[in-house]
Amino acid sequence: MIEAKEFSERRNRLQEEIKELGLDAFLISQPESIYYYTGATYKPQERPFLITIWPQRDPTFLVPKLEKDHIHKANIGDVKSYWEFPSPPGEGWPEKLDEILQGVKTLGIEQGISLENQSCLKVKKLKPLDIVNRQRHIKTPAEIKMIRQSASYADKLMAMMLKNAYYGVSVLEMFGLGRKIQMEVIKSGEFDPLNCEFLSATWPSRFSHMPHGVPPLDGKLTNGPLAFMSYLRVNGYASENERTVFLTKPTEREKDVFNHMRAARQKAFDIIKPGVPCAEVDKAALGYLRKQGYGEFLLHRTGHGIGQGNHEGPWVADGSEHILEENMVISVEPGIYIPDLGGFRHSDTVLVTKDGYEVLTKGSTEIEDLTLLKPKFMKRIIGRLIQKALNIA
Amino acid sequence: MIEAKEFSERRNRLQEEIKELGLDAFLISQPESIYYYTGATYKPQERPFLITIWPQRDPTFLVPKLEKDHIHKANIGDVKSYWEFPSPPGEGWPEKLDEILQGVKTLGIEQGISLENQSCLKVKKLKPLDIVNRQRHIKTPAEIKMIRQSASYADKLMAMMLKNAYYGVSVLEMFGLGRKIQMEVIKSGEFDPLNCEFLSATWPSRFSHMPHGVPPLDGKLTNGPLAFMSYLRVNGYASENERTVFLTKPTEREKDVFNHMRAARQKAFDIIKPGVPCAEVDKAALGYLRKQGYGEFLLHRTGHGIGQGNHEGPWVADGSEHILEENMVISVEPGIYIPDLGGFRHSDTVLVTKDGYEVLTKGSTEIEDLTLLKPKFMKRIIGRLIQKALNIA
Repeated sequence: MIEAKEFSERRNRLQEEIKELGLDAFLISQPESIYYYTGATYKPQERPFLITIWPQRDPTFLVPKLEKDHIHKANIGDVKSYWEFPSPPGEGWPEKLDEILQGVKTLGIEQGISLENQSCLKVKKLKPLDIVNRQRHIKTPAEIKMIRQSASYADKLMAMMLKNAYYGVSVLEMFGLGRKIQMEVIKSGEFDPLNCEFLSATWPSRFSHMPHGVPPLDGKLTNGPLAFMSYLRVNGYASENERTVFLTKPTEREKDVFNHMRAARQKAFDIIKPGVPCAEVDKAALGYLRKQGYGEFLLHRTGHGIGQGNHEGPWVADGSEHILEENMVISVEPGIYIPDLGGFRHSDTVLVTKDGYEVLTKGSTEIEDLTLLKPKFMKRIIGRLIQKALNIA
Repeated sequence: MIEAKEFSERRNRLQEEIKELGLDAFLISQPESIYYYTGATYKPQERPFLITIWPQRDPTFLVPKLEKDHIHKANIGDVKSYWEFPSPPGEGWPEKLDEILQGVKTLGIEQGISLENQSCLKVKKLKPLDIVNRQRHIKTPAEIKMIRQSASYADKLMAMMLKNAYYGVSVLEMFGLGRKIQMEVIKSGEFDPLNCEFLSATWPSRFSHMPHGVPPLDGKLTNGPLAFMSYLRVNGYASENERTVFLTKPTEREKDVFNHMRAARQKAFDIIKPGVPCAEVDKAALGYLRKQGYGEFLLHRTGHGIGQGNHEGPWVADGSEHILEENMVISVEPGIYIPDLGGFRHSDTVLVTKDGYEVLTKGSTEIEDLTLLKPKFMKRIIGRLIQKALNIA
C-alpha cells in the first residue's frame, strides 16, 4: 500500500505548482483526486469532500460530519466538517468552505467539478486547471509497484479464463472467475471494497464486434473470435489484459485479421518511448490498419493512461496533446471490428521506461496459444451443471 | 423491466417542460439521466453520451462511435456518433454537438455536468436547470414496481444476514452473502451488471458509530450494537434495509438508546404524507432526539430519496426545500452514534402514498427479534473453516 509519507509528498508537489502559478489556493474536489492526495476512499454521492491546498501552509480538509471520525487515515492535520447535504443556513459545505477560503482572491479548481458545486463557490476569480491530472500522469515508484501487482492479478485472471474456457461455455461461468481473484486479494490482507474491482468478461463472436455492448450472461462462447477481458482495480490501482480467443480452428480470413491486429500493436510498440507524442503512437497503429484496408472497421483509439483510474490521461489518440514520458502507464489496444465476423483486439498494460517500454501484463499474444481446442471434460460437466441450475443449458 | 414506451413517455414529459420554459433545446448529459430517458447503461468514463431534447421534434442522441452499434436498445430514432476522446479537429463530441445545436440560442443543461464539458458547449445562453431531478422525484407505476422488487430482495438479503450471524462471525462472511442474492437475480433472467449492486455490509460495534468508515473484512461481530446493511440496486432501481443487531444480550443503556432511535423513526412516520415539507420530517425525528439529549450524537439527516440512485432527492433534511408528494420514495433512518458504545440505526425504503406511506422493506424492527443468541453450530463450523482458510480464525 502507499505510505502516508508519499501522500504528503504528493500534496507538497501540488503546493509547489500552486506557488509557481501565483494562486492563493487550489481546491481538490474529485473523488479520485481525494484518494490520490490522501488515500481516503468514500462513495462519491451528494456530500462532497474538499481539500484546500495553500501555497504556504498545511492543507485544510472539509468533509461531512458523518465521515469525520474515520477520516484520520487521510493523515491531514486540519480536518473540518460540515453538517449535511442539504443543511440549514450556515451549516452546509458552501458556507463552511467560504469560511476556510476567507481572503482568497484567486482559486484554482479542478475541471471535473460539477457546474452545481462550482456555482456554490463564492471566490470571485476561479481558475480551472488541469494540474492534478498532469501530476497523476507520471507514476511514482510506489504507484508502479501497485500497478505491477494489479497487472499480475490481471494475468492470473486471464490465465484462469483461458484454462476454464471450452466450446459452449456460458458468459456467466467466465463472469464468476473474477471472484476467485477477489478472494486472493482479500486473503493477502489488504482489500478496500470501495477501491477494488475484479471484472472477467467475455463477448461471444456475434457480440465481440461491439466491445462496449453488455453481452447477455446466458450467452455461450462457441466459434471465435471471442473477446476475453481481465479488467481490474486492486486497492486503487488499475490494469487490463485482453485477448482475442478461438474455441474452434480459426479460418484463414480470421488468421489474416488477427495478424493485422498484432502487426498494428507492433507498430505502436516500435515507437513507444519518452518524448514521442501520444498522437503519433495512435497514428502508427491505426494508420497501419487504414493502409491495410481496415479503416471502416476501426471503433476507437490505440489506448489510454492507466493508474488509479482504468481510463485516464495520457490519451493515446489522434488529437491528444500528451507526450510520452518515463513512468507513464498506458494501454496498447488497437482493434478491428467486423460486423459479420467479430472483434479482434489484445490489450496490455504498458509502462513507459527510460529507453522504451515494459509490458506489465504478460502472457502469449500468439494465435496458436489462444486457440483452445482441448476437450476439458471436467470443465464441461461442471459447466453443464451450472448452466442447468440457471436454466440456460 | 421498464418498457420502451415508458422511456418515450418520460422524454415527452421533459419535452413539455421545455416548451413551457421556452427553451430552444435541453441537453441531457448525466449517466443516470441517460438511463432514465433511454434504458441504456454504460460505464461513464471520458466519452460522454448526450441527448438533445427539442421542443417540437424527436430527440437527437450523440454517442461515441464505439457504442453506436449496441445503442439500438435506447429506442431513439436519431443516433449520431463522434469518433473518440480526444479526436482530431472536427471529429470530437464538442464539434459534432455544435452541428446538432445549430441555431439554438438558449440551451437548458443539467447542473451535474462537469465544468470541463460545459466549457466545450458553444451555445451562448446556457440555463442550468433542475428539471430532470424533479421529474425523477415522482416515481411512475413501473418504477414503483421495480423498487418494490428491489426492496423484496433487500429484505431477503437482510433475512439471510440475520440467519447467518453468530457471535464471532467475520465481516467477510456477511460480505459474501450479497452474492447469493446476485445469483438469484441472474437466474430470474434479467441482470445488467452495469446496473446492479448487492452490498451486504456489517459494522462491528467499535465501528458502528462510524457508519461511513469501511470496516476491516477480517473484523468480527461480537457484542452489539452492530450495524447490518442490505443495500441494493437491481436493474437500475435501488432499495435499502438496515437494522441494529445484538449478538449478546443488550444492556439497559443499549435498550434505552435503541428505543429512542425507534421512537425518532416513529416521529418521522407520524407525519409522512403528501404536502409535508421534507425538512419537517427531519425536524420531527432529529428534534425528538435532540430533546432527549442525543444532540451531540447525531451524524446525519433523517433520510433521502431512493430510485435509480441509492441517494437522490428529495432530501429528508433540515434545509431541504422539497415537499413530499404521492409516489415519492424515501429512506427513513435517523441514527444515534455514541463513540464508546456504537451506532443505532434502522433504515427502510418508504413509498409516500395518497394518504400516508407504505414501508416497502419489511422485517421486524423490535430489539427482541434482532437479538440473536441461538448457538447455530453448523454456521459456526462453516464460518470457522472460512476464517481458517483466510488466516483470520
